[in-house]
Amino acid sequence: MERVHDPVIFQHAIDGIDMKNNIIATYYMSDRLPGVDFIDHFKLIESIAIEGSTGSWQRVEEESTEVREMLSGKLVGYYEIPTEDEYRKSAVIQLAFPINAWHDNVPMMLLSIAGNCFAYSQRIRLLDVVFPENMVKNFRGPKFGVEGTRELLGIPERPLSLHIIKPKMGMTPKQTGDQVYQTAIGGADMAKDDEMTSDTYNNNFRDRLKYVMDAIDRAEKRTGKRMIYFCSITDEVSKLHEKAREAVEIGANGLLITYSVGLSAIREVTSDPDINIPVMVHNSHMIASMDTISWPVFTKLIRLCGADQTLTPTYWSSIPMVSLEEGIRCQHVAQAPFYGFKKMWSMPAAGTYPGLTPILMSEYGKDIIIPSGGGMLGHPDGYTAGAQAWQQAIASVMEDVPIDEYRRTRR
Amino acid sequence: MERVHDPVIFQHAIDGIDMKNNIIATYYMSDRLPGVDFIDHFKLIESIAIEGSTGSWQRVEEESTEVREMLSGKLVGYYEIPTEDEYRKSAVIQLAFPINAWHDNVPMMLLSIAGNCFAYSQRIRLLDVVFPENMVKNFRGPKFGVEGTRELLGIPERPLSLHIIKPKMGMTPKQTGDQVYQTAIGGADMAKDDEMTSDTYNNNFRDRLKYVMDAIDRAEKRTGKRMIYFCSITDEVSKLHEKAREAVEIGANGLLITYSVGLSAIREVTSDPDINIPVMVHNSHMIASMDTISWPVFTKLIRLCGADQTLTPTYWSSIPMVSLEEGIRCQHVAQAPFYGFKKMWSMPAAGTYPGLTPILMSEYGKDIIIPSGGGMLGHPDGYTAGAQAWQQAIASVMEDVPIDEYRRTRR
Repeated sequence: MERVHDPVIFQHAIDGIDMKNNIIATYYMSDRLPGVDFIDHFKLIESIAIEGSTGSWQRVEEESTEVREMLSGKLVGYYEIPTEDEYRKSAVIQLAFPINAWHDNVPMMLLSIAGNCFAYSQRIRLLDVVFPENMVKNFRGPKFGVEGTRELLGIPERPLSLHIIKPKMGMTPKQTGDQVYQTAIGGADMAKDDEMTSDTYNNNFRDRLKYVMDAIDRAEKRTGKRMIYFCSITDEVSKLHEKAREAVEIGANGLLITYSVGLSAIREVTSDPDINIPVMVHNSHMIASMDTISWPVFTKLIRLCGADQTLTPTYWSSIPMVSLEEGIRCQHVAQAPFYGFKKMWSMPAAGTYPGLTPILMSEYGKDIIIPSGGGMLGHPDGYTAGAQAWQQAIASVMEDVPIDEYRRTRR
Repeated sequence: MERVHDPVIFQHAIDGIDMKNNIIATYYMSDRLPGVDFIDHFKLIESIAIEGSTGSWQRVEEESTEVREMLSGKLVGYYEIPTEDEYRKSAVIQLAFPINAWHDNVPMMLLSIAGNCFAYSQRIRLLDVVFPENMVKNFRGPKFGVEGTRELLGIPERPLSLHIIKPKMGMTPKQTGDQVYQTAIGGADMAKDDEMTSDTYNNNFRDRLKYVMDAIDRAEKRTGKRMIYFCSITDEVSKLHEKAREAVEIGANGLLITYSVGLSAIREVTSDPDINIPVMVHNSHMIASMDTISWPVFTKLIRLCGADQTLTPTYWSSIPMVSLEEGIRCQHVAQAPFYGFKKMWSMPAAGTYPGLTPILMSEYGKDIIIPSGGGMLGHPDGYTAGAQAWQQAIASVMEDVPIDEYRRTRR
């Protein structure tokens, strides 16, 4: 008789999977049926495995056993989580999806690992994705990453301080340049537009680049250090790539793109060899999916798609969003060995201030960029002093000297 | 003294808003602080309004009152929801975001209405978006929509039946063509590839189009009706537009694109006047965000970005996902008067079978496309009989005759 759970889907363990040709997706799923103390989680998992690959709820003739064997998702790990609620079943599960059906196509990959599956459990979250070699070989990862950016800046070891230009919108290009000049002479290593900075009635990326790069030139003459400025070019995908190329021609030394353009559009820009400057991805719209997709998954996807740095949540921010561990885990996966790709910068973000530096460095290490808007510009002595305060905070931790002593002895 | 809630953000009602230049976003938000019976929801709302526009948690010099007045989000409606939990505060709120800062740029619009806001409440969901005329005038909406597609098919009034080609992957182009031929001669009005159909080892859109359009030609000779086939072209955005153009050249009469390419990429394709065939958007990856963005919002965005039809959830499906009302509401907004745009088809989807036709038509009306995969192909007498069963089910409801009587008297 027919098995209630198709062995083609279930009779697998990770040992037997061709890791070069399967993507491994790990999910948390939890379901509760009040008054029903029997939930067959395997039936839900079968739906998830099939919906992410070959199937429909009603099997059809052409879905032969051969097709299922070759293309369907397969359960390779089932880890039940004890619960004291008799009507609830919770588990961490691992599914293997063959890449045969779509190879390196990002929008299609998202359907496989993060598509219909979310409809099949009351509480389901994609926790991790392991990418197979035969898919990854068509990607290139970060062009600069930690190592390349350190070379550009001539800063071999310490964390970097990044000035988030504020307000998010409304400034003229000249105002932007003026603000950047003040933090640049204070020693800020990088500056970025706010992610919502757009081409509008009183501002556009061409004029902004002119003023900001001029400010950076002037500051460099004074300090000897050349700041990297991430210029916001987010726009319709039909314009994005061309804007990126034009920005490079004008002299940009960094680009800022938001996740809301789609991972595929980000990959298009970073894959262009002529875009030979670091690219930062801002994850604002990503938050809309964080109930179903974990931050480490997003972080890995963004690294895969070629960003050099991306914001990552931290428990110590004004918007914690995730647990202590999930925030720190983003740094781990951004910089873990990964098919020879460069390490991506992790940027513990939102509401940071210099006093957080010791704890951020103790948790995230030295290969981080600490972005700060109000926490730099809100310094009572002004923007330059705000940038200096960050440099002092970082230097004091690097030298293992309390910040007060550092300020007293090193100024 | 400084007001705890900035009047520039709060002292507004919808009456005083320039509706031609503001996007109105409606959210549900609910927060609970156990042991704390005071939650200042307005402080959270201030963060949401400012984060979606000008601000940072720490106001800076350049964020002048003028900039805030012109560009910041503003509270225009606050509707508290009674709760019996003394530690919880829940409300439906409406914010107005000026479009000055980004005009018609979809990725930037998403940051405004669906960006950082989701970090500021424990349970927040975007329920509705009202688009202003000065933004919408740069969009064109569906090229065909309900009216145009009915003309193409010569079907003036009744719901359409769509054959979802199954399995999701693994078939050859010839197998696909053979399956489509069988439903086409059974009277199916449309067919669509599964959204995961990709260019792969044994299949690509060019060959598939050749076989399927040939099947449609042959079926047309037999039945006199020309089926529309939505050919899956989802791919990296760098290839998508060109694939769409090539498909049209080869002779495609419909295109299928998934939401995972990004709304902006969908808009790029539908905006091209040479893509003169209906476009269907599949929403698989969208489900990842449905905890924070309602289906009617997605439906409106997809109509705005030019799709002719899109899947919408129904309570009666195998995957309900949303309430009865939220599913039906998608049909309402897809076909509501909207700046002269054509009506978009609503497609109550997932696990449909002919017996659902009366209830779907009673809830959604006649301007729907009912997609069915297993519910058509799983017919005991085969695919052609499955397609016929749908035609009979639709005809019987149109004629207000019980299905059994219809089958007995009309065959």
